[in-house]
Amino acid sequence: MKERPDLERWLPLPNAVRLGDPTALPAGFRAGGVSAGSKPSGALDLGVIHCTEPAMTSAARFTPSATAAAPVVITRDRCDTSRLRAVLVNSGNANASTGKMGFEEAARMQGAGSILLGIPIEHLGLCSTGKIGEPLDGRVFVQTLPRLGDDLSSDATTFNQAICTTDLFLKRAAVDLELAGGTVRITAQAKGAGMIHPGFATMLAFVQTDAELSASRCGKLLDNALADTFNRVSVDGQLSTNDTVVLQASGASGVAPADDAEDKLVQAALDHVMLDLALQLIADGEGATRLAKVRVKGGDPLGHAADKVADHIATSPLVQTALLGADPNWGRIIQAAGHALAGRGPVDFDVSFGGVQVCRANQATRYDRDAANAAAAEQLVEIEVSFLGDGEATRYFCDLTVDYVKFNSEYTT
Amino acid sequence: MKERPDLERWLPLPNAVRLGDPTALPAGFRAGGVSAGSKPSGALDLGVIHCTEPAMTSAARFTPSATAAAPVVITRDRCDTSRLRAVLVNSGNANASTGKMGFEEAARMQGAGSILLGIPIEHLGLCSTGKIGEPLDGRVFVQTLPRLGDDLSSDATTFNQAICTTDLFLKRAAVDLELAGGTVRITAQAKGAGMIHPGFATMLAFVQTDAELSASRCGKLLDNALADTFNRVSVDGQLSTNDTVVLQASGASGVAPADDAEDKLVQAALDHVMLDLALQLIADGEGATRLAKVRVKGGDPLGHAADKVADHIATSPLVQTALLGADPNWGRIIQAAGHALAGRGPVDFDVSFGGVQVCRANQATRYDRDAANAAAAEQLVEIEVSFLGDGEATRYFCDLTVDYVKFNSEYTT
Repeated sequence: MKERPDLERWLPLPNAVRLGDPTALPAGFRAGGVSAGSKPSGALDLGVIHCTEPAMTSAARFTPSATAAAPVVITRDRCDTSRLRAVLVNSGNANASTGKMGFEEAARMQGAGSILLGIPIEHLGLCSTGKIGEPLDGRVFVQTLPRLGDDLSSDATTFNQAICTTDLFLKRAAVDLELAGGTVRITAQAKGAGMIHPGFATMLAFVQTDAELSASRCGKLLDNALADTFNRVSVDGQLSTNDTVVLQASGASGVAPADDAEDKLVQAALDHVMLDLALQLIADGEGATRLAKVRVKGGDPLGHAADKVADHIATSPLVQTALLGADPNWGRIIQAAGHALAGRGPVDFDVSFGGVQVCRANQATRYDRDAANAAAAEQLVEIEVSFLGDGEATRYFCDLTVDYVKFNSEYTT
Repeated sequence: MKERPDLERWLPLPNAVRLGDPTALPAGFRAGGVSAGSKPSGALDLGVIHCTEPAMTSAARFTPSATAAAPVVITRDRCDTSRLRAVLVNSGNANASTGKMGFEEAARMQGAGSILLGIPIEHLGLCSTGKIGEPLDGRVFVQTLPRLGDDLSSDATTFNQAICTTDLFLKRAAVDLELAGGTVRITAQAKGAGMIHPGFATMLAFVQTDAELSASRCGKLLDNALADTFNRVSVDGQLSTNDTVVLQASGASGVAPADDAEDKLVQAALDHVMLDLALQLIADGEGATRLAKVRVKGGDPLGHAADKVADHIATSPLVQTALLGADPNWGRIIQAAGHALAGRGPVDFDVSFGGVQVCRANQATRYDRDAANAAAAEQLVEIEVSFLGDGEATRYFCDLTVDYVKFNSEYTT
């Protein structure tokens, strides 16, 4: 998909929310992006998102990978993630698997950025995305920083461009939320497109709001939103070395949620923005042509059986290739579900495509083949799987295509 | 690969073993295969392997899938797996996800086969392989049984053909083993080619020997061999609904292992035959063009960290597409290894391709690029990964190709 597909069917608008302009940052933020020349294409490769309010708050979450990249380790372990005033991002080189020199180069960029923006070192986070295992030359970024400083504005566009690698379209979202005290705005930017799999926080994503929020509230909002959004999508089941998501709240609107009800409105608005980003990520999954949403009901709600079934379905190359073929192939769904609950004795599953039940208790029903085929041929395919029990899980995924294989076999380190 | 590639490098011949003729069954066995006409191609689709020695012994292992097929349930739960005199196999239809009718059709075939061969019902196992979720018409097989009965001989060829589905070549192996009491023979047949992943026992495989073995010894031999062979290969990480492996010992040679040392010789010979079959399975993985063996050393031997790392590497589509591209892409190895040990804090990995170390402690070494590229371009690619600790694990896998995606997106239920 070369353009963001129409995702509205899976993005119902919450109460008190209207869609906003994703290029217009909330009050208290400025951003920019420039080319330091590290990409052969000359595309933008260095960006910063900066909150100008010293009393701001933030939260950040990172990949749990045991081989996390240098910028992840520095931001996670050596910054104050409750007050990340700014995040400096380079794209094209992940600064992962680059050893001690990778840490030095990252530290160099952090030091330079801190002076440029006039903020303490520990308030400047770092993100890198791109090739793994290639030495990063921080000098080209450091010497470009003054030019980046000149580019800063309340328009998110160049920052959004500067964080991209193989992305075919900009991933961004924005909403305005009406609270009793006034309007607050949430904007967000992310980059794709391979190595996407749930794991606490996934990929690079940046979320800004001008609402007044405590740092601990930021953390709770982010954890809740991740659980229902980024942690429910998979492109290829591969956890990245660099995944980072940062939520920054400037407080510049002067509006804070007034009560529990308004806390929930803020959560719903943030969930909406992040689900929008997450769906854009899989829509731009390498080679993707079709998306699927699988809703699983069954199992003990505390036992995660529904999650296991949903994960196995979403990451099965057999299901993913059937999605490419517009095939309502419930046999492969049953196979993946049986794999997910291996060793648990026989389990009976029902399967529907777009509301057309094609399988009851692991067995074909007499179904309307034209309707099922039509449901499997939509751009957004809806699959429902159920078995005994009250657990629930939802996952979103894309198809596995010839282009994914071509891209990843021809793209070399 | 349309022909069995040269796998000898990964199949060192054990002591006292020489390669045998895979079409010549050991003493005490006969087999056959015919076409019942269930395949549009008219290819053979019904086969039987029959031990003519009433005092024979056997062992069988099955998929742990929670949606196991009817023939798996019937053979596993209602047969005497320590004395499976014969196994009746149909190919083209897996009789999986076929409900009560699937059990009836399987039972019908079992009843008919029992009369044909003159053996008790509980001594006749069943296997099916092919499409999932399509009703099986047992009548066509039952009415073809008399013709199958006429085809039985000591030549394994038509049986071997009759168990195939999308296989491009026959999977078979044979060895002769010199023991103090005389020579014993082991032959084996298997079918591929997708949905292959470790899980106790995988795919359909049949192993025959004329050695004298107790049923409990058969079970131990089979468990040990599976752990080191079938449970170490993966094509697409997908556990099947029908996986079954059966070891039958006729005792017709009159030769039993004389002592512990000879027990070990038998185990090594069986391991060799089953590793040969397992490698043939992945060599005929759907669309496969290149094979890899990844040896992982590290972690607590009791903690399975090495197994996790090896599993993640072998099932990563990023590693599998790099294998297709003949790319010694150690960055994707580090990413998969980091994913495998997610949440464990930083771990340093070394990576070699064909003995050429390309990465030390997650960082590029100065390596001979031509040598590494040559190692990654071989038909059999050897990858070594190590980290702190004494655990060990080995996995074999094939590349992920355009043909895999095409085949599985165009092949519909």
